[in-house]
Amino acid sequence: MRDESVFDELKEECGVFGILGHPDAVQLTYYGLHALQHRGQESAGIAVTDGTGFRYHRSMGLVNEVFTPDILEGLKGSTAIGHVRYSTTGESLLTNAQPLVFHNAVVGQLALATNGNLVNANRLKEELEEQGAVFHTTSDTEVIAHLIARSDAPSLEEAVKEALNQLTGAYALLILTNDALLVAQDPHGLRPLSMGLLGDAYVFSSETCAFDVVGAEYLRGVQPGELLILDRDGLRSSRFAPPASRAVCSFEYIYFARPDSDIDGINVHTARKSLGRKLYEEAPVEADVVTGVPDSSTSAAIGFAEAAGIPYELGLIKNRYVGRTFIQPSQHLREQGVKMKLSAVRKVVEGKRVVMIDDSIVRGTTSRRIVNMLREAGATEVHVRISSPPVKYSCFYGIDTANRKQLIASNHSPEEIREIIGADSLTFLSPEGLIQAVGRPQENANCGHCLACFDGKYPTEIDEEESLAVEGKR
Amino acid sequence: MRDESVFDELKEECGVFGILGHPDAVQLTYYGLHALQHRGQESAGIAVTDGTGFRYHRSMGLVNEVFTPDILEGLKGSTAIGHVRYSTTGESLLTNAQPLVFHNAVVGQLALATNGNLVNANRLKEELEEQGAVFHTTSDTEVIAHLIARSDAPSLEEAVKEALNQLTGAYALLILTNDALLVAQDPHGLRPLSMGLLGDAYVFSSETCAFDVVGAEYLRGVQPGELLILDRDGLRSSRFAPPASRAVCSFEYIYFARPDSDIDGINVHTARKSLGRKLYEEAPVEADVVTGVPDSSTSAAIGFAEAAGIPYELGLIKNRYVGRTFIQPSQHLREQGVKMKLSAVRKVVEGKRVVMIDDSIVRGTTSRRIVNMLREAGATEVHVRISSPPVKYSCFYGIDTANRKQLIASNHSPEEIREIIGADSLTFLSPEGLIQAVGRPQENANCGHCLACFDGKYPTEIDEEESLAVEGKR
Amino acid sequence: MRDESVFDELKEECGVFGILGHPDAVQLTYYGLHALQHRGQESAGIAVTDGTGFRYHRSMGLVNEVFTPDILEGLKGSTAIGHVRYSTTGESLLTNAQPLVFHNAVVGQLALATNGNLVNANRLKEELEEQGAVFHTTSDTEVIAHLIARSDAPSLEEAVKEALNQLTGAYALLILTNDALLVAQDPHGLRPLSMGLLGDAYVFSSETCAFDVVGAEYLRGVQPGELLILDRDGLRSSRFAPPASRAVCSFEYIYFARPDSDIDGINVHTARKSLGRKLYEEAPVEADVVTGVPDSSTSAAIGFAEAAGIPYELGLIKNRYVGRTFIQPSQHLREQGVKMKLSAVRKVVEGKRVVMIDDSIVRGTTSRRIVNMLREAGATEVHVRISSPPVKYSCFYGIDTANRKQLIASNHSPEEIREIIGADSLTFLSPEGLIQAVGRPQENANCGHCLACFDGKYPTEIDEEESLAVEGKR
Amino acid sequence: MRDESVFDELKEECGVFGILGHPDAVQLTYYGLHALQHRGQESAGIAVTDGTGFRYHRSMGLVNEVFTPDILEGLKGSTAIGHVRYSTTGESLLTNAQPLVFHNAVVGQLALATNGNLVNANRLKEELEEQGAVFHTTSDTEVIAHLIARSDAPSLEEAVKEALNQLTGAYALLILTNDALLVAQDPHGLRPLSMGLLGDAYVFSSETCAFDVVGAEYLRGVQPGELLILDRDGLRSSRFAPPASRAVCSFEYIYFARPDSDIDGINVHTARKSLGRKLYEEAPVEADVVTGVPDSSTSAAIGFAEAAGIPYELGLIKNRYVGRTFIQPSQHLREQGVKMKLSAVRKVVEGKRVVMIDDSIVRGTTSRRIVNMLREAGATEVHVRISSPPVKYSCFYGIDTANRKQLIASNHSPEEIREIIGADSLTFLSPEGLIQAVGRPQENANCGHCLACFDGKYPTEIDEEESLAVEGKR
Repeated sequence: MRDESVFDELKEECGVFGILGHPDAVQLTYYGLHALQHRGQESAGIAVTDGTGFRYHRSMGLVNEVFTPDILEGLKGSTAIGHVRYSTTGESLLTNAQPLVFHNAVVGQLALATNGNLVNANRLKEELEEQGAVFHTTSDTEVIAHLIARSDAPSLEEAVKEALNQLTGAYALLILTNDALLVAQDPHGLRPLSMGLLGDAYVFSSETCAFDVVGAEYLRGVQPGELLILDRDGLRSSRFAPPASRAVCSFEYIYFARPDSDIDGINVHTARKSLGRKLYEEAPVEADVVTGVPDSSTSAAIGFAEAAGIPYELGLIKNRYVGRTFIQPSQHLREQGVKMKLSAVRKVVEGKRVVMIDDSIVRGTTSRRIVNMLREAGATEVHVRISSPPVKYSCFYGIDTANRKQLIASNHSPEEIREIIGADSLTFLSPEGLIQAVGRPQENANCGHCLACFDGKYPTEIDEEESLAVEGKR
Repeated sequence: MRDESVFDELKEECGVFGILGHPDAVQLTYYGLHALQHRGQESAGIAVTDGTGFRYHRSMGLVNEVFTPDILEGLKGSTAIGHVRYSTTGESLLTNAQPLVFHNAVVGQLALATNGNLVNANRLKEELEEQGAVFHTTSDTEVIAHLIARSDAPSLEEAVKEALNQLTGAYALLILTNDALLVAQDPHGLRPLSMGLLGDAYVFSSETCAFDVVGAEYLRGVQPGELLILDRDGLRSSRFAPPASRAVCSFEYIYFARPDSDIDGINVHTARKSLGRKLYEEAPVEADVVTGVPDSSTSAAIGFAEAAGIPYELGLIKNRYVGRTFIQPSQHLREQGVKMKLSAVRKVVEGKRVVMIDDSIVRGTTSRRIVNMLREAGATEVHVRISSPPVKYSCFYGIDTANRKQLIASNHSPEEIREIIGADSLTFLSPEGLIQAVGRPQENANCGHCLACFDGKYPTEIDEEESLAVEGKR
Repeated sequence: MRDESVFDELKEECGVFGILGHPDAVQLTYYGLHALQHRGQESAGIAVTDGTGFRYHRSMGLVNEVFTPDILEGLKGSTAIGHVRYSTTGESLLTNAQPLVFHNAVVGQLALATNGNLVNANRLKEELEEQGAVFHTTSDTEVIAHLIARSDAPSLEEAVKEALNQLTGAYALLILTNDALLVAQDPHGLRPLSMGLLGDAYVFSSETCAFDVVGAEYLRGVQPGELLILDRDGLRSSRFAPPASRAVCSFEYIYFARPDSDIDGINVHTARKSLGRKLYEEAPVEADVVTGVPDSSTSAAIGFAEAAGIPYELGLIKNRYVGRTFIQPSQHLREQGVKMKLSAVRKVVEGKRVVMIDDSIVRGTTSRRIVNMLREAGATEVHVRISSPPVKYSCFYGIDTANRKQLIASNHSPEEIREIIGADSLTFLSPEGLIQAVGRPQENANCGHCLACFDGKYPTEIDEEESLAVEGKR
Repeated sequence: MRDESVFDELKEECGVFGILGHPDAVQLTYYGLHALQHRGQESAGIAVTDGTGFRYHRSMGLVNEVFTPDILEGLKGSTAIGHVRYSTTGESLLTNAQPLVFHNAVVGQLALATNGNLVNANRLKEELEEQGAVFHTTSDTEVIAHLIARSDAPSLEEAVKEALNQLTGAYALLILTNDALLVAQDPHGLRPLSMGLLGDAYVFSSETCAFDVVGAEYLRGVQPGELLILDRDGLRSSRFAPPASRAVCSFEYIYFARPDSDIDGINVHTARKSLGRKLYEEAPVEADVVTGVPDSSTSAAIGFAEAAGIPYELGLIKNRYVGRTFIQPSQHLREQGVKMKLSAVRKVVEGKRVVMIDDSIVRGTTSRRIVNMLREAGATEVHVRISSPPVKYSCFYGIDTANRKQLIASNHSPEEIREIIGADSLTFLSPEGLIQAVGRPQENANCGHCLACFDGKYPTEIDEEESLAVEGKR
C-alpha cells in the first residue's frame, strides 16, 4: 500500500477470515489476518466462540499491534472470525471496528464481519431508525445486524436470507454464532471470498494468500448469491439469490490483492504480468529501461519489460520505513527537493529513455510528481504506461475512488492527462486488453469483471440519493 | 532488512549523516537518517549546535518513532550530526545510542557519531581505565571520545589525529563542536562515507541515497585516512594516515547498501544486477523461472534472469507488515505449515524448475527453509545461485557475521551445503566474478574491496585477544 | 478510594456532569469530571454539541489520561455532558464507557450519561431483544436509549417520560441533543444530582464539589421524579413520577462523596465528623489515641477524637503513589511483612490504646489486617469503631457490595466479627445514630435515607430474577 | 507533594535504598523505593549484583511506571541499591537517573546512588576535565565516580575515602560493587540515612518508612563522616572525617520526610504535631476552626487545634487525581474561578474565623491564593500560622529553594508578608520553638539542625562561585 498522505490512490478496503472447528482457531485467524493486512490497516478484530460463549477483541491499529500474546491467550475457542478494516463508509472510529458483536433474543450471541459496501445502507438505516432502532456505529455491518435481529423468520438461516435480500451492494460476509458459521457473498460476487480446508477445519478468507500462510488447501470460491451454513450437521450450501455469473472487481487483480493470491484460480502476480505484456502489445515504445512504481506495479513492469525485451530496472525506490507517524517535510523543504518515501535512482535513469509502469491514475498528482522525479534524475524521455483503463466513474462497492469531479480521466482525454503529468507519451490498457490479459472464463455477455469504474455500467441498482451522498462527501 | 528472529543473516550496522551551515539542518538530518534507516533500526539520535551550545535527542526505536514534531522543534541550530544504530559491539542499551555527547575542558562540548567497529577497542579501554577513565557505555565511540579528551595536543585537529592514530579498525566518523565539523575515515576506507553539497551547505552521509532524499548533490567520497575540518575558514582536508587504496566492504554492494545508493560512483542496484549476470555466466542452468529472496536479492535475480533469458517471477513473497512485536507461531503451528513472513507462490512455481537467487548463505538454515518452501509449493527443481562467494571468516569491522563455527561455508564444501539445504544445484559467485561484476577501479595489487570474510585476508592487524573475544561471544 | 486489589470495600460508582450554553463547556466539563474522579476511575467521556452536530470522546482511564489538549481542542461546542465510570453492572469494556451516543430517526443525535443502576434492566433488555433490538453494550444506559428510541411519543420530552416510567432503580440521568439538555432523577432520589449556575449557564453535577472547582454557584438538588428540560425556551421542570420524599443512599454521606461536597445542603465532611461524634456518644472507650483508616475515615475519626478528648493521630499512613500498575508483593514477601500501601506508624501507636475508626466493614478481611498491623506496631489495645451500621444486604442501586454470603455482618453478630478481626472491642453506629448525625430533614415516616443495605427495606420493587442474578454473579 | 506547576514550594530531593545479602533484594528495593517515592518522582533506578556481574535499569517516571514485572524479573541478585530522583542540580535527563553504573580498571564494576548536593561539584568537575575526564551527565554523582576512579589508593575503601575528602556538601551515599556495599554520610549528616536489619540482611534507607514497608527493623542512623563497608567479612565502620555533631536539615522534619518516618528516633508526624502545638503557644489566636494545607501541614494543624481547643476541620481539599499530565486551566478560566487541585470547603469555613496552618512560605504566591480562596468561601477572618521560621537564605545542600531574590522573607518583614498574602494575622514559628518542638538532643553549641535557610549559618564552606551560580540560575 502506498501512503495516502502522499499519493493519491485507490484506498483498499477490508479483509475477512474465518475458521471452524480447529483447536488453534484464534492463532490461525491472527496469522490469516496478518496475511490480509494489506486490505486494511485501520483496525483489526477477532471474535471466537467455544460453543458456549463469545470472546472478542477489536482495536485500532495493525494486527500485530492490536493482538498481544496476552490478548490472544485470552481468546479461547475453536471457531473464530476476524477482520481488518480500512474505512470507506463510516468514520475512523473504534466503534466501527469489526467483528461486530451483539446479542439478540432469537439467536443469542452473533458476530458479523463484512468486506464490501452496501449501496442502500443509508436508506435501510433510516427505515430502521424510524422503527426505533438504535445505531451505535456508522458501518454498514450494523445495518445487516439489525435486519437479522428484526426478522421474524423461524431460523437464523431464514433470518439471514431475509436480511440479505434487502441489501444492494458488494459484500463478503461471515456470521459467527455459538453453534454455527454462516458465510455469504453478494449476488454479483463483487468481492473475492474463498473456502479452504485445514485438516478437518473449513477456512474462509478474502484472499488465498492467507491459506498459504496457515497451511490450508484451497477448495473453491464462495459463489455469488450463495449462503453457506456450517454447523454440527456439516456444511450446507443454499442460495438467497438466483445464480448469476460473477462480476469480480477488476481492481482486485490490478491493484488490491496480494500478488501471491489467486482469484478464481488465476494468480494475481501472473495476471499483472499479463497486463504488462498486453500493455506492451497495445502500446509499444522504444526505450532503454522499464521501471515500475513500487510495490504494486512491479509485476506489470516485469511483464512489460519481458515482452519488450527492454531491461527492467529499479528506477524508483521506496523507503520501507515510512510509518504512520512519519513527519512530512514542510512545503518549503519539499520545494527544495526533500523526498519522503519514493525516490528516483539517478544512476539507473540518467540519460535514459524510461518506461514507467503504474497500475492506475486517480487524480494525476502522483503521476505528475513521479514523472518529474524521473526527469530531475536525468531521464531523457518518460513514457507512462498504465496497466488499467482510465478510471472515470466512482465506485459504490467499497473502493474509495475520489468523487467523479476529482477523477482526472473523468474530465480529461488521455492526451490532456499526458500533458498534465508531463509525460512524453501515455497509454492506458484497453478494457478488452484487461479482460483478455486476466483471462477469466467468460460466459455469455458477462466478462467476469466489474468494470463500472471504467465504463459506468454498475452491476447493481444505484440508489440515487446514496450516489449523491457518495459523490458529495468525497 | 530481513527479520533476524527468523532468518540467519548478516546484521547491518550503523549510518551517519551530518550537515554544516543550513537553517533546516535538523529536519534534513531527520530525512537523511530516515533514508539510512536500513543500516540500523535499534536507536536513532541527532545532536545540533547553533554555535553557542548543543541540543540533542537519542532514543531506542526507528527514526520516525524517536523524533516527534515537538522533539524536532526543540532541536535548534544550523549544524547537526545524526546516527542510526544496529548494535554489533555493545549491548542494546539506550546509553549506547549515538551521537555521544560530552564536555571536555580543552575543547568544550563535543558530539561523536561513528559507523564501524574498532579491532582494538577493548585493549584501549583497559588502558584508559587503568589511567582512571570512567566509561559509561560499551560502545567503541566512547573510546574515541576519551582518547581525544586525554590528548595534550594544542588543537582539536591535532587531538583528533592523535586519537585516530591509536585506532585499528573500520570507521566513518563525524565530530561536532560548537565551531566545527570534523569528518574522518579509517585508513582503508572500509565503510562508505560520501560528501555532498546542498546549496552552500556541506553534507555527509554513509550512503548517497540520503543525498537524493534531501536534494543534495554528490561531490566525492571521503578518502581513506582523510580528516576533513569544516569551520569558519571553510573546508580543509588533511591526512592522519598515509594514502592507501580503498578496500571497501564488499557486502555493502552485495547486501547492505540501498539499491539507489552509489558507492564510489557505482550504483548498488546496477552492481547487483551485474552480480546476477556474472553468476549466470559462471553457473548457467536450464530452468523455467528465476526468483529472488526479497528484498535484497531482487536486483541480482533480475540480472540473472535477463542474462539467462528466463522469466523473472515473484516466486517468494514477503509480508511487509511484520513488525518488531509480531507473535511468532509456536513450533507446533510452524510444523503444520504456518508461515510468518515469507511464502512461496504456488501458481508461480508449481511444476516449474526454479532458480532461486540469494545474496549470501550464513548458517544455511534460511536457505534450507526456503528451498523446502519452494518444493512444497510444487517446484520440480530448485537451483540455488548465491551472488557472493562463500562466507568463511568472521568480520571484525562491524558486520555481525556469526562466529566461524556457525558459518556453514567455514565447515562445509559447496556440495555439502547443497545437500544440507536440499537444492538440486548450488553455486556461489567466485571472488573474481564479484570483483569484475562490481567493476571498481583496481590499483596495483589492490582490488578495491575488503574480501576478508571470503578469504581471511584482513586489511588491518587483528588483535588476537579481541579476535578470540569476538569468536567467543558470538 | 482505596485499592480494590488489596482491601475489600464498597466500590464507587459513576459521576455525571453537564453544562448548557457556555463557550468553555468542554473545558469546564473536563474540570468538573476531574472533581468527580473519585466516583469512577475506569473510563471517562465527554459529548458536546455546537447546536448542529455532536462530537465525543470516550476512553478507558482517568480523566487526565483520557483527555489530552489535542482531544479537548477537537471537542467544540457550548453544551456538553460528561461521565466517569466505575463498572458495577456491565463488564469493563470500552464499549460501556459513557456518554452513550446514538442516532435516532425521530430525535436525531442523542447522548446519554447515567449514574446509578436499574433493577429491571435485564428484563427490559430481554423484552427489547425479543422485539429485534440490537444491544452493543452491557450497560443499563443502553436500555434507556432503546426505550426512548422505540417510543411513539410526539416529543422527546414525552418519549423520555415514557421510557423513565418503565425503569425501576436508581439513576441520575443527563440527555444531550443538538437542541436541548434533559436532566432526570429516579423517583426516590437515590443518587445525588445537583443544579448550579455559572454566569448564565446551568450546570449539573453528581456532587457539588465540581461546582466549587468550576466556580459555579449551587442552586438546588434535582428532585426525585423530576424531569428538567433546558432548551431555547429556558428551563422547564416537569414530573414523570409523583412527588415522593427523597431516600438518598446513606453511603454517599458515609463513604462515597467527597468531603467538600454538600448533599441537600449538608456538607459531607461535617456529616462524617458528626458520625464520629455520635459514634463516641454511642460507644465511648478509654484510649490514648484515635486514628482513622485513610482517607475516607479521617473526618469521622477527628469527630470521634474531639468528642472523646483523645488526641487524633496519624496512626495509619497510606502511600499516595500506588498506581494501577503497582506490582503486588508475592505471598511469600507479604508474609515477611512487606506492606503495599497502608502502614502503621510505630512511634504513634507503640504502647498505646488505639481507637481505630473505619467507615464500614464489608467482608472483614481489611479490618482484620489493619488491626493486626496496629498490634504488630505495638498497640496494646485496638478498639474498632465503625461509623455506619452493619452492612447485611446487597445493594441493587449501583453500589458493588459483595453478595450477601460474603457480607460478614450478614452472617455474624458484632461480637463474632470482633473476634474474627481480632479487636479488643467493636461497635457499629446505630441506624438511628446515623440518621440523627447526618441530620437530613425527615418527613413523615421517611428518614430521608436509603438504608436498604442495613435493614433490607428496599425503596423500590426488587425483581426477583435480577436479584438472584446479582447475588449469583457476585 | 504539592504540584510544582501550581504552587511555589520547596522541591524535594532524592531517596536511596540498599540491601545486602537477601534473595529478594530487588523486590525489596522496589518496595523500599516506592516508600521513598515522595522524595523524588522524576526518575527511578535499581542496580543489583549476584556477585559476578551487574544488572540495572533506570528510567524517567515513578517507581511503579519504571519497573514492570518483566523488568524486575530480569534483575537478578542478592545485593541491590536503588534511587528515586528529583532533579536539583542537573537537568531532567535520563542520563542523570541513578544509580550511576560504570566500570573501572582498578575496582571493576561500580554503581553509585546519592541523595544530596555538593557545594564544590562544578569546581571539581572543571579540574577533572582539565585532566582529560569525559563527563556524560550533569549530576554530582558522576564527580564522585571520577574521583574514585582516579585515585591511586590501593583499596576501594581508601579510594572512596580519598574521594569523599575532596567533597564539600550534603550527601548520603551508597556504592555497590560485586563484592561489597559501601555506605557513607557527609561530615555534618545533613541528609538522613538509616541502617536496619531484615533477617540477616542489612538494609539502608533515606527514611525509616521504607523499613516498615519491607518489614525491616531499625538499627541506627549512619553517622556524620562515617563510612560503612559491608562485605564477606561482615560490617565494618570507619571514618573519613572527624566526628562532628549532626546538623540534619530541619526541613526533613518540617516538610520533606514522610510522617511515618523517624529521624534519629524522632517520629516526623509527632514532631510536626509538636511544631503545631508550639506554634499555638507562641502565637495563640481566637478562631472557630483550624485547617491545614493538605497534605504536608495536616499534622501541624492537628497539633495546633488540640493545643488551642479549636476544632480541626477539612477546610481545604486536594484533588488526589491530579497527575503529571493534567491540563492546566487557561488564565481566562482561572480568573473565572476554575480551580485545579485545591479548593476551600464553603460549608466548613463560611462565616468562620479560620486558622490556616502551612509548613512554610517560599515566594508567598501560594499563601496569597489560599487565603483568597478561604475568603471567597466565606471565611470572616484568616489567620495564617507557619510551622517554620521565615526562609531567608538559599539552600546549597540539595533543596530547591528559590534564589534569595525570590524568597519573600528575604525581602519582607512578616508584617509586610501578611499584607501581601492578605491575611488577618501571620506568625512564623521561632527558630527556638522549632528546636524545642522537634526535641533533638543538643550537644554543646550545636542544636542538631541545619538552620541555614533561616539564619544563613551554613555548616560547610560555601564556594563563592558555586553560590553565585546557584543564585544566578534560580
